[in-house]
Amino acid sequence: MLNMKELDLQYPTCPVRNVLSRISDKWSLLILCSLQEGEIMRYKDLKNAIPDISEKVLSSTLKRLNEGHLINRKMYKEIPPRVEYSLSDMGKELMPAVQMMITWAQTHFDEITN
Amino acid sequence: MLNMKELDLQYPTCPVRNVLSRISDKWSLLILCSLQEGEIMRYKDLKNAIPDISEKVLSSTLKRLNEGHLINRKMYKEIPPRVEYSLSDMGKELMPAVQMMITWAQTHFDEITN
Repeated sequence: MLNMKELDLQYPTCPVRNVLSRISDKWSLLILCSLQEGEIMRYKDLKNAIPDISEKVLSSTLKRLNEGHLINRKMYKEIPPRVEYSLSDMGKELMPAVQMMITWAQTHFDEITN
Repeated sequence: MLNMKELDLQYPTCPVRNVLSRISDKWSLLILCSLQEGEIMRYKDLKNAIPDISEKVLSSTLKRLNEGHLINRKMYKEIPPRVEYSLSDMGKELMPAVQMMITWAQTHFDEITN
């Protein structure tokens, strides 16, 4: 998955190619939904909330969502260091649309998967 | 990309893992948006509308979206056979949420990609 700064050379202004396709994958959606519920979560909280995500993918997806400013990453200088994740204001603004898609998917789940 | 009938074994009822993650990739979104505009389109119309999609990916994505009942596929018994694609009613129902995400992405494009 490309990071948020690598624009599509052929279509550098396309919102689907450059933004949505990088945040609407399974793991990004699951992380955004977990943070919407959990509000402030640490890495291990997210790993518990999404048991089927690998540590590598959780780390890279958190990095990408933070680079894209959808989530905040706050580090406390403690020993060991504590890191907390939360939705940014911009990330929160996306969630009604994500929720609409989830409701649509739940409504039509049987039609789509049968 | 899994087809729509292959449920996630660990989470067989999850709308994100089983539905959204299979229709919110770049090519699915671009095809759905093209059909929303073009209404009834043939394969070559879609290829023209999305020049950077390969023939193989266009065919497999159309197949997956048709299997998931998001798009209709109508074949006319002519020589050569004519095939037309269009959004199904269920597909049309998804588009307001997709449009909301696109508007959000356009609004925050610079913040996200810089």
